[in-house]
Amino acid sequence: MHKEILLVEDNPDDVELTRLAFDEAKVANRLVVVGDGAEALDYLFARGAYAGRNAEELPSIVLLDLNLPKIDGREVLQAIRSNDATRTLPVVVLTTSTEPFDVEASYALGVNSYIQKPVDFEQFVWAVKQVGLYWLVLNHPREPG
Amino acid sequence: MHKEILLVEDNPDDVELTRLAFDEAKVANRLVVVGDGAEALDYLFARGAYAGRNAEELPSIVLLDLNLPKIDGREVLQAIRSNDATRTLPVVVLTTSTEPFDVEASYALGVNSYIQKPVDFEQFVWAVKQVGLYWLVLNHPREPG
Repeated sequence: MHKEILLVEDNPDDVELTRLAFDEAKVANRLVVVGDGAEALDYLFARGAYAGRNAEELPSIVLLDLNLPKIDGREVLQAIRSNDATRTLPVVVLTTSTEPFDVEASYALGVNSYIQKPVDFEQFVWAVKQVGLYWLVLNHPREPG
Repeated sequence: MHKEILLVEDNPDDVELTRLAFDEAKVANRLVVVGDGAEALDYLFARGAYAGRNAEELPSIVLLDLNLPKIDGREVLQAIRSNDATRTLPVVVLTTSTEPFDVEASYALGVNSYIQKPVDFEQFVWAVKQVGLYWLVLNHPREPG
């Protein structure tokens, strides 16, 4: 069974473009979309609305926007890296920001990779396809458990 | 100016295949090859035979084999992650091993990504091209300095 992809994104247009890109790239993994940082952590740690989820079934990758409602992306990243269960989960920041402060903070907090969302539609779809290809096909993940 | 790629690899065949893959992918960055872990650390920290190098000019990425003469890849990774100057340098392990012990150790030591070298020639070249494309074109690196 293919593991899920967790997309943490509050912009509906970017969610749709990401779906389209993964469809075009024939990515079979189910895309789980959460719209804010609090929901992302609830999902990962099987709390709140996700209390029924098996917390041991982690997604293959987390695609994380930085500027998010409730709990922002930096705090989500910090929470992922601070918990033994999720410490080595691949996290890719996907954001419009290339502020040096955001880039530095993300790497300092242990992000695997930092991708600027292209503004151009075609380039956005290409970038997301490459991200999917790299992390779902090429990268060898940590074994679960 | 394109930043260098540091390839830490003791197998001459794999060095040649990596060169070929980057040539085919039209990667313009200069490939610096070192054959053991001690030389890798000398290069990165501008010591020994590399004492004349500017230590502030870090490569764009380190492609790291695990089983290396003198100092092995795990120790090289640990040294990179323990030094403030190199802590956030992108490091991709490229190895034939998919031993869970090696995978776990690499992620625990903070590797950005872990790639198993394909045995098949064409697949090896494809994988190295994708690695180059992802880390040199798509990923937004930490700003130097």
